[in-house]
Amino acid sequence: MIKITKHDTLFTDFNDFIRRSRRRFLVKQAPKVIWMTGLSGAGKSTLSIEIQNALRRKGYFTKIFDGDIVRTGLCKDLGYSLEDRLENIRRIAELSKIFVDSGIIVICSFISPTHEMRQLAKEIIGENNFIEVYINAPLHVCEKRDVKGLYAKARQGLITNFTGIDSVFEPPLKPDIEVRTDLWSIDKTARYMLRRIIPKVKFRKITIDILNQND
Amino acid sequence: MIKITKHDTLFTDFNDFIRRSRRRFLVKQAPKVIWMTGLSGAGKSTLSIEIQNALRRKGYFTKIFDGDIVRTGLCKDLGYSLEDRLENIRRIAELSKIFVDSGIIVICSFISPTHEMRQLAKEIIGENNFIEVYINAPLHVCEKRDVKGLYAKARQGLITNFTGIDSVFEPPLKPDIEVRTDLWSIDKTARYMLRRIIPKVKFRKITIDILNQND
Repeated sequence: MIKITKHDTLFTDFNDFIRRSRRRFLVKQAPKVIWMTGLSGAGKSTLSIEIQNALRRKGYFTKIFDGDIVRTGLCKDLGYSLEDRLENIRRIAELSKIFVDSGIIVICSFISPTHEMRQLAKEIIGENNFIEVYINAPLHVCEKRDVKGLYAKARQGLITNFTGIDSVFEPPLKPDIEVRTDLWSIDKTARYMLRRIIPKVKFRKITIDILNQND
Repeated sequence: MIKITKHDTLFTDFNDFIRRSRRRFLVKQAPKVIWMTGLSGAGKSTLSIEIQNALRRKGYFTKIFDGDIVRTGLCKDLGYSLEDRLENIRRIAELSKIFVDSGIIVICSFISPTHEMRQLAKEIIGENNFIEVYINAPLHVCEKRDVKGLYAKARQGLITNFTGIDSVFEPPLKPDIEVRTDLWSIDKTARYMLRRIIPKVKFRKITIDILNQND
C-alpha cells in the first residue's frame, strides 16, 4: 500500500496545476493589434521594442512585425509604389489577424502613410482588435535623426517614393493613442502608451481557448 | 512587523512559479512544420485535426494552416494556375516560418502537388524544421470519397486545374512519413504518425525563449 504523505498530495496538485496552467496561461490576455504609424525615424521600432519588453515583463505574449521582417520574406515580391505598399499592408494585416486569432498581442510598426492603408488594416483585423497609435514627430526632427541615413539618400534622389520627401504621409485623424517623440523621452512616451494599452489587452470576459479550438 | 507564515511562503513561491512558468511553458517543444501533402480527399484535413488534438492533449502548442484559411485572406489575390499555386505555397511557407520562429508547431495541410512547391517550402522553412508527410491514397479512392464534390465538378469541366484530373500530382520521393489512408483507419493512421512526430517535436536541448527575445 502506498501511503500518501502531505508532500505527495502537494506534488500531485502541483503537477495537475502545471498541466492545467499550460492550457490557461496563454488566454489571460485580450489579443489586439497595436498598430504604430508614423514617419521613418519617428521612433516606431524603438517604441515597439520598449512596449513589447514592458508587456512581456508583465507576462503578456506578444509578437512584433516590422518592415525588416516582412520585406525579406512574405512580401519580398513587392516594391515601394503606393499600390505595392497597399498590398504589403494587406498581407501584414492578414498575418496579424492570424496571430490575434491565436490569442497573441501583435505590435505592428509600419509607416503605413495613407488613411486608405490604415483603414484596410483596420477592416481586415477588425475594429475591436485594432489600436491605432500615431508616433508623431515633425518631419524636420525625423530627418535630423536620420538613423538609417535614408532621408539623406532620398534628398539626393537615390531612393524614390520615400514618405515625407516625395511620397505623402497623411496623419491619422483620430488615432486611439498619439505621442510626440520630439517632446517626450522614450521612457515617458512608453509609459504614456502603456497606461493606455494595458487596459485594452487585459483579460476580461471573453475567453479564447487557444489550446482547445480546432482552428 | 509582518509575520511570514508557512502558508505565505508557499503562496509567494506559487506566485513566483506562475510568473516563471508563463515564460517557460511555451518553449518546451521543438517547433516544426508538419507539412501534409496529398490529393484532395486523401485525408489531410481530417488527420491534421486528429494530430493537432493529440498534440494539444499532450500540452503542445500547435496551429493548423489549410487552404480554407489562407485562400480567404492572405492569398485571396491568387488563382489556381501552377504559377499562382507556387506563390500561394511560398506565402504559406513564409507564414509558417514566422510561427515556427515564435516557437509554435505548425501543421500545414495543402495539396502542394509538385516537387518544386514542396522544395520551395522546405527551403524557406529550413530543412531541420520541415517534416514532410505524404498522405497517400489512390486517386480512384479519393474520387470515390469526393467529400466536397470537387472531383465530380472537375470531371464535368466545371473546375479546371484540379489536381489528379487535369493537373499533375507528383508523389514525394522521400517523405519523412508516409501513410496509406485507403488501407488504415483514421485512428491507426494518426497513431502511426504521432509515434513518428512526437520524437521530433519533443523538447531537447535548444531553448527558444519566446518571451524574452526582441524579435
